[in-house]
Amino acid sequence: MKRALSVTREENFPEWYQAVVDQADLAETSPVRGCMIIKPWGWGVWELVQQALDKRIKETGHENCYFPLFIPMSFIAQEASHVEGFAKEMAVVTHHRLKTVDGKLVVDPTSELEEPLVVRPTSETIIGDAFRRWIASYRDLPVLVNQWANVVRWEMRTRLFLRTTEFLWQEGHTAHATKEDALEETLKMLEVYRVLAEDILAMPVMVGEKPENERFPGADSTFSIEAMMQDGKALQAGTSHYLGQNFAKAQNIRFQSATGELEYCHTTSWGVSTRLIGGVIMTHGDDDGLRLPPRIAPKQIVIVPMLREKPEDAELLAYCEKLKSELDQLTAFGLPVRAHLDKKPVRSANKRWDWLRRGAPILLEIGPRDMAGDNVTLIRRDKLRDGDKVISTGFAREKFLSHAPGLLAEIQQNLFDEAKARLDGNIRSDLKDFDAIAAFFGAATDDDAQQGFRGWVRAPWARPSGADLEAIEVRLKALKLTLRNVPVGQGPASGVCVFTGRPAVEDIIIARAY
Amino acid sequence: MKRALSVTREENFPEWYQAVVDQADLAETSPVRGCMIIKPWGWGVWELVQQALDKRIKETGHENCYFPLFIPMSFIAQEASHVEGFAKEMAVVTHHRLKTVDGKLVVDPTSELEEPLVVRPTSETIIGDAFRRWIASYRDLPVLVNQWANVVRWEMRTRLFLRTTEFLWQEGHTAHATKEDALEETLKMLEVYRVLAEDILAMPVMVGEKPENERFPGADSTFSIEAMMQDGKALQAGTSHYLGQNFAKAQNIRFQSATGELEYCHTTSWGVSTRLIGGVIMTHGDDDGLRLPPRIAPKQIVIVPMLREKPEDAELLAYCEKLKSELDQLTAFGLPVRAHLDKKPVRSANKRWDWLRRGAPILLEIGPRDMAGDNVTLIRRDKLRDGDKVISTGFAREKFLSHAPGLLAEIQQNLFDEAKARLDGNIRSDLKDFDAIAAFFGAATDDDAQQGFRGWVRAPWARPSGADLEAIEVRLKALKLTLRNVPVGQGPASGVCVFTGRPAVEDIIIARAY
Ligand SMILES: [Zn+2]
Ligand SMILES: [Zn+2]
Repeated sequence: MKRALSVTREENFPEWYQAVVDQADLAETSPVRGCMIIKPWGWGVWELVQQALDKRIKETGHENCYFPLFIPMSFIAQEASHVEGFAKEMAVVTHHRLKTVDGKLVVDPTSELEEPLVVRPTSETIIGDAFRRWIASYRDLPVLVNQWANVVRWEMRTRLFLRTTEFLWQEGHTAHATKEDALEETLKMLEVYRVLAEDILAMPVMVGEKPENERFPGADSTFSIEAMMQDGKALQAGTSHYLGQNFAKAQNIRFQSATGELEYCHTTSWGVSTRLIGGVIMTHGDDDGLRLPPRIAPKQIVIVPMLREKPEDAELLAYCEKLKSELDQLTAFGLPVRAHLDKKPVRSANKRWDWLRRGAPILLEIGPRDMAGDNVTLIRRDKLRDGDKVISTGFAREKFLSHAPGLLAEIQQNLFDEAKARLDGNIRSDLKDFDAIAAFFGAATDDDAQQGFRGWVRAPWARPSGADLEAIEVRLKALKLTLRNVPVGQGPASGVCVFTGRPAVEDIIIARAY
Repeated sequence: MKRALSVTREENFPEWYQAVVDQADLAETSPVRGCMIIKPWGWGVWELVQQALDKRIKETGHENCYFPLFIPMSFIAQEASHVEGFAKEMAVVTHHRLKTVDGKLVVDPTSELEEPLVVRPTSETIIGDAFRRWIASYRDLPVLVNQWANVVRWEMRTRLFLRTTEFLWQEGHTAHATKEDALEETLKMLEVYRVLAEDILAMPVMVGEKPENERFPGADSTFSIEAMMQDGKALQAGTSHYLGQNFAKAQNIRFQSATGELEYCHTTSWGVSTRLIGGVIMTHGDDDGLRLPPRIAPKQIVIVPMLREKPEDAELLAYCEKLKSELDQLTAFGLPVRAHLDKKPVRSANKRWDWLRRGAPILLEIGPRDMAGDNVTLIRRDKLRDGDKVISTGFAREKFLSHAPGLLAEIQQNLFDEAKARLDGNIRSDLKDFDAIAAFFGAATDDDAQQGFRGWVRAPWARPSGADLEAIEVRLKALKLTLRNVPVGQGPASGVCVFTGRPAVEDIIIARAY
């Protein structure tokens, strides 16, 4: 079968992913190891994700601010688990000047810093330091801030959007008087992330708590949303952490309570990153490229005029301009419709495939015959083909205009429903012991492309901890499996733990993961 | 006279500036040398500046994207003038791992990078490298991109917003087929900056071309907008550079022309930064704190209910909630009005001064008597006092609601007019030689606070270059003076050059500057 990409999902999923990133013009590798260049189309998607999330972050009472890119090395050491988790993978600034020696640019050795600075891998310590200064009394609480920022974690194996040395994210940081308030905040933002993933990205997720071994370094509990990619693997798409009093004690973040006592704050942090775009690709992409949910499509409706380098082109262009200005008046999802008229001097057939690969939700191809009949010819990206044939449908222009907002909503819903059916249909919960689970997933292969689709397992467990949990982790790791999360809102547990044989206390999700 | 700040502009302008930044809750110093923490109120201003500018950047055909934070050291060396200008002040990443030795965190010496990375001081070289890959034919031109990013320049003396080691900005980068196209782009974005400064920040500017010695390292010509601060000094508020073929030749950015020849591109770059906020403070602030132009005020109308911890408070709060929701329905400057009801458990008098210091354009104080008469009591931040007395005015609620958008527009215009009168009234153009100019500015002092208000001089000059210009620079530097720019749109020159005595070719602005 001929499709727009040179490789299909089935043939080689990792190569297919790379082909979509490339062919949809989302991003490219840069000359800086592990850092990516986000191209305009990819950036446009990120801007829409940011806008949607930023609105909800503000609606839930948080204020944006900005903290330094650099963190003094000594700060990283303040919280013991935190340094353990992060110290191994940071960019370290040691000098502040270059100089030319014999015509060659070198680091000036006289410019060595007294204390090295790390490029923030996350900002708990530098923000905690400000919290200590900002917070004196219970009246100052809660403190609810967020920043949009770039962070750097030195990664050995990188993949565009999914794992890059530099990535972009938002990180929320809050301080509260009580554990109850802080936990409520943690779960509130987890719910904001669920809504973002499901309603904006059309990416259904499993909401749950991470097991102890998968917690953020320094957290008392970590919650996540996990999405199922089309290769059956899990993608952690967002996390929200209750940090207990760990950072507060390490950094002396205290407040005077209403009764006059000095108490440590309870803090939280939560973040989502450009990784979400990787999730969108692997949730919605097909063998013709990306499919974008309309809510995050930088251009929702693209008009391609079928120009023929003839005098009649002018009239056709005028017709298309008018159509675009009519679309500009429409509203979808509470925002102006994003329509685009592609006037580039490129063959119409190439334009069609460029926009289909990029995942524009609706393509309108307008030729002289359409104009004559006051029609549009429409291609829906979410329902592109019947067998191998591309489906295009004629509409009277007026009728299309009145249906366009509803059609965009329908496409958004359709993409969600497809992904939701995949998630719901591929969680095995009938495997009763570790051998059955191991047999289900099969042996791990070195080559991701050979892994094959498996989906997830939902299994009862006894919530082992410490050395017991570590031993389980080792067994799972041999199969390249990980514990994803313990879904929230479970009923009473039944059965026995698939790992320990002890009475189960809850179900946990097991999967291969990104 | 009693004012809300502990220091007045006249007493000590630099200390006054610092007091506004602090008392208006805009930003604070961080534990990282030269890096600032932008607090929610300051960040809110920056978000509005970003939104206004981003809209115009897109309307003029540019697309946002994102390039890596790090630049390989060798890239910086590619363009000779560029390395000369920037090599001396950069953060250099040399290692990628920390480790714990005897319980102490240190840089892991085995993690040294093969090639050091610099934290971008500006991105011409890393973006030029992408342009080389992206551009093949004249059909690919122009390339018009922009990024919003943090950059780092290692500064010895820093001042919040005005000069910080890390700052935030946008940097536009474009490539064109001809010099004419590139120059047109350079001037188009300069005009976008003028509109941003004057219409959005209410900060009038002098638009002009920088003299040779003040050009961006690697540029053929640099244009700027310069604003006059209340101490009479100039602030360079935005720059736009025509880079000629310098970077194209250094980085081999070429295209095949319509006639099949391989030619070097002409490139441009242009940027404004968080420094603009410093400009807003020094343009509009007074001895009671910040005054924000309504278009960039995160909250334009703040309602302070005069609560008395009595049962009647509930009714008063309900009245204020209703007022806020009515204000939320209004539109000013084409956007929803940003109203805020301050319900914090703080004394009303403190709230009044908090919001006045922060520069909220309109304050509504609502007490039981206002409610009873269905009135509001209004304080305009731009016309705060009559003598020492704070002016507050009663309005019928309905009347205020119908006038609010117009009032915000009037405040915006009033702030601009004040600043415009200051700029226009303080440019001396009658000084005919260097001695007169030196006498006018007076001797330089080590202490900025003792400098006194002078304003600018506009003087004819012969556009000397090379060694002649360097000698002039030395003479000016002894008086702490700089050449700002050559205003655009000048009539024919007359008179003689104040520096060389040769026939003048144009006027240039001379001033002390930030
Ligand atoms: Zn086929
Ligand atoms: Zn007085």
